[in-house]
This record gives sequence, C-alpha cells and structure tokens, in this order.
Amino acid sequence: MTDFSSLLISESAAVAKDVDRAFDLLLAVPDDPRAPLFEAMRHAAIGGGKRMRPLLVNATARLFNVSQDAALRVGCAIEAIHVYSLIHDDLPCMDDDDMRRGKPTVHKAFNEAIAVLAGDSLHALAFEWLAEDETHPDPFVRSELVLEIGKASGPSGMAGGQMMDLAAEGQEFDLATITRLQQLKTGALIMVCVEAGAILGRVPPEGRVHLRAYARDIGLAFQIADDLLDAEGDAAVTGKAVGKDADAGKATFLSILGIDKARAQAHLLVDQAISHLSSYGPEADLLRAIARYVIERDR
Amino acid sequence: MTDFSSLLISESAAVAKDVDRAFDLLLAVPDDPRAPLFEAMRHAAIGGGKRMRPLLVNATARLFNVSQDAALRVGCAIEAIHVYSLIHDDLPCMDDDDMRRGKPTVHKAFNEAIAVLAGDSLHALAFEWLAEDETHPDPFVRSELVLEIGKASGPSGMAGGQMMDLAAEGQEFDLATITRLQQLKTGALIMVCVEAGAILGRVPPEGRVHLRAYARDIGLAFQIADDLLDAEGDAAVTGKAVGKDADAGKATFLSILGIDKARAQAHLLVDQAISHLSSYGPEADLLRAIARYVIERDR
Repeated sequence: MTDFSSLLISESAAVAKDVDRAFDLLLAVPDDPRAPLFEAMRHAAIGGGKRMRPLLVNATARLFNVSQDAALRVGCAIEAIHVYSLIHDDLPCMDDDDMRRGKPTVHKAFNEAIAVLAGDSLHALAFEWLAEDETHPDPFVRSELVLEIGKASGPSGMAGGQMMDLAAEGQEFDLATITRLQQLKTGALIMVCVEAGAILGRVPPEGRVHLRAYARDIGLAFQIADDLLDAEGDAAVTGKAVGKDADAGKATFLSILGIDKARAQAHLLVDQAISHLSSYGPEADLLRAIARYVIERDR
Repeated sequence: MTDFSSLLISESAAVAKDVDRAFDLLLAVPDDPRAPLFEAMRHAAIGGGKRMRPLLVNATARLFNVSQDAALRVGCAIEAIHVYSLIHDDLPCMDDDDMRRGKPTVHKAFNEAIAVLAGDSLHALAFEWLAEDETHPDPFVRSELVLEIGKASGPSGMAGGQMMDLAAEGQEFDLATITRLQQLKTGALIMVCVEAGAILGRVPPEGRVHLRAYARDIGLAFQIADDLLDAEGDAAVTGKAVGKDADAGKATFLSILGIDKARAQAHLLVDQAISHLSSYGPEADLLRAIARYVIERDR
C-alpha cells in the first residue's frame, strides 16, 4: 500500500523548490527604475505558499508522460495568477490584510500603487510565459492553455467569484449560491491546473471528464477546509489573519452547514474525488495524496 | 491628393461604432451577483475614448488583406487592456482621478474593490478573446498575438512604464529615461497594435521593421501631445483633469524640453513616422492620417 503522506511530502517539497527557482529566474530584477516592481513580485511569489496549483499540474502531467519542465512552466503561470489575486485581494479596498504567508502583504511592504502594478504584472507575465515556445512546441497546445487559464481567472472564473464574494457581505446567500461562488473564486483555478496537465498531454476535452470531476470535488473540499481554518485555525500557523469571515458577516459553507456537517461534507468530497481516479493506477497516487491533504492541512 | 482628415473621421467613427457593438456583445451582463462587475466593465469600456488602438490594428491589417472581423477582435482585446490600465491608473492609490472620458471613474461610479476587479477581469478577458478560434484559425497566430500583447502590457511594457512613472515623482529623470518611460508606458501598447495587424497578416518579424518604426514614432509624438494637452488643454474638452503632471512635480517631455521644442519634436516625429511608410501606397493612407491626427487632436 502506498504511503500517501510521505509521497506528498517529498513531491510537494520538490515542486516548491522548483517553483521558487523558476520564479527567481523569471522575475530577475532589472537595473532600472522598475526594480521595486520586480522586488514586489518576488516578495509575493517566492518562498511561500503551499504551491498546490503547480503540484496539481505536475501530478496530472505525470499521468500523460508530459515533461516536468513543461508542467513546471505552466504551474508557475497558474501560480503567478494565484499570487496576483492574493496581492489584489489583500488591498485595503478589498480584504485589507496586513499579513500573508507569514510576511507583510505587498501593499504593507511596498505601497498600494506598487501592489496594484505587481498584481497586474504577474497577471500579464502568466500569459506571456504560456504563449512562449518553451511551454510547448505545438502552438495549439499553448493557445488552448491561454484560453482555459484565461477563462478560469477572469469574470467567468476567479474574478467573477471574487465579485460574488464582495456581494456576499450582509447577503443571505443559499448553499447553491455559496457553492457557485466558491467554484468560481477558487475552484476554477484549481480545476484548470488539472485540465492544463491534460492539455499538455494532448488529452482531448472528452478524456478530461473524470479529472475535472476530481478537481471540482477537491476544490470545494479545499474551500470548506479553508473556512474551517478561518474559524478554528491559529494565525501563527496559517500565517494570515483568522476569523475574518465571521467578522465580515459573510455567508460561508460553515455559517450554513455548521462545523460538523461542513467537516463531514469535506470528507465526503475527498472520497468522491478519489473515486473519480479509479481508471488510473499508481501513477495517480500523487493526485490521491493531494486530495487527502486538502482536508488534513493546518494552513 | 488624399484628404487625410475626412478619411480619418469616417474610418475612426466606423471603428468606434464597431468596438462599442463588440464590447456590448462580449460584456453581456449575467443575471447573477456578478452583474455589478460587468456593469463596471461596460461603464469603462463602452461609449468613449478615441479608440486609437483598435483603429491602428484595423489600419495595419488592411495593408495585408486581413479580415475586418479579426482586426476588430484583436483591437477589442488591446483596447480592453488599455481600459483596464485606465481603471487601475485612476484608483486613489495611483493617480486618484474622479473623471475619465467625461464620466465618473469606475471607483467613483461603483467602488474601489469593483474597480480593481473590473480591471483584472478586462485583463483576463483580453487574453481569453485572443486565444479563441474566432480570432484566427491558425493557433500559431493566436499564440503569437498573446505573446506580443502580453509582453507589451506587462512589466517589460505598460506596467513597467507605470512603475517608472511612479518612481518619476520628485526624481530628476533625464530625456533618455523619460523617453524610455513613455515607450514602455504608452508606446509598447501602441506598437503592438501595428504589430498585431501584421501578425494577423502573417508578416514575419523582419517584415515588420518599418511598421514598428512608424509606431514607435507616433507613440512618442502621442505622448508629447498628451503632455501638451495636460499643460494647455481644457478639462471640458479632454474629459479629464488637466495640469496634473506639473502639480505632481513629474519630469515630462515638457518640463525638460519646454513647450516650443516639445511641439517641434512632436511634428518631427510625425513626419518621420510617415516616412517609414514609403514602401506602401494608398492602402497606408489611414496610417498616415492617424500619424497627423496624433498631434492635431484636442483630447
């Protein structure tokens, strides 16, 4: 029997190291007045985070014998989009957070204007990296990656979910609306990681159905776990402020389901996610390990 | 002899109408809590602006018999990036502007959080539109458009120029640094319009040299004209606040060259831009007309 947790620990450490090294090269600081912009991007992008998105690209890509370099590049592009969204989310006009990943947020360490620009810059770089030859020799693959990652991050995905989140304050959203909100806000980008691994492996859309179902389930489980951490977590461990959802009066999975039902639902989703991988053998063990980790993490 | 000004008036009116119609379709408001996000994008994107960028794509595309639909789509993508940059630029933490194109800025008409998200959403949509089949049947062309437009808008282009602009306050930038700042901040996106028209026409990079030189010159002339309008223009005509550069103590072409030399330089650049089009016949008259307009406009 596979030891999922040691597999996860070794693989996620390797991916985290690779991502940091890649960002270090991709975000080299120029010797001109743009230097603070690059310093701000590096502050946010290097040396922190769970790197779950690059890990998911890597874990899916290995099902289809995709080169690790290609998976890393696409993983970095998606992580850059995730990081840009965190920078903008932390702004005073959004969540107004001072700490992120155990460090001051970008607008605290630099200033708000640089934070806006650093987010915008990572956003543009993500698409630039995806469209470069190095990502994949076939322009159809590059173009499909841009399309799917664009959809997942824009108003039909992450940004749309963030708008729903803004609208949620003081609103009585029901479970279906909360589910849709979370599927857009965090689920779409998680789903496109798995999709991207398959696109790199030239798997046509109809061959990605089970993988998408897997990603949908872990995305929701991840969000419920996030809500539980926000309610019960320790700011010293999570590296960011906790208890903010309740303070803001936002409807969440937790406020609707209660802690026990939410936890049970997260476990159910993880079991279901793993069942979607039944047609794969040991090559999908990393995806299985990620699913378990999603609800066992403490940050 | 061609009547440049009537050609420009008719063609730019047609492009402006096409762009508004395309944005109206592309930014249809969904019947869900994301509606304000789409309303905010529409507020910023529809019914205003000179549409110089889509016009440049159109004017270049016609040199190479590119379909007007493809040019319009790419023009809208670049215009969406331009509009996103205006929304973010107008934020209180950046230029803190209340009016844009004669209307309240997005953060005034909605709020700051929605303004951040509307900018981010237009940014993502631009790349999504470029990567879609409808843009061009050849994925190599789509991928090249994403790459060049990504470069032109990120930290090696527009966002990098905005960072230099932030750093310019209270600094003694010399003419070379101001020129580089403006080439990044506005020049890169103007240049990629012309480049995109040529990419759609499958013109290889070496065939775009004169067009790039044309675009570089009009981009600089455009910026000098902008500085002149900021110093001398009428807020009622320009639709935005004037005199802001001097108030902010920013070095500009004007503060270094003075009004007369700046105006002479702009005229020189326009003549030079037109000379780069000498290998083209009447099919390049719209590009010539745009070059003249750049320094004759009053807004």
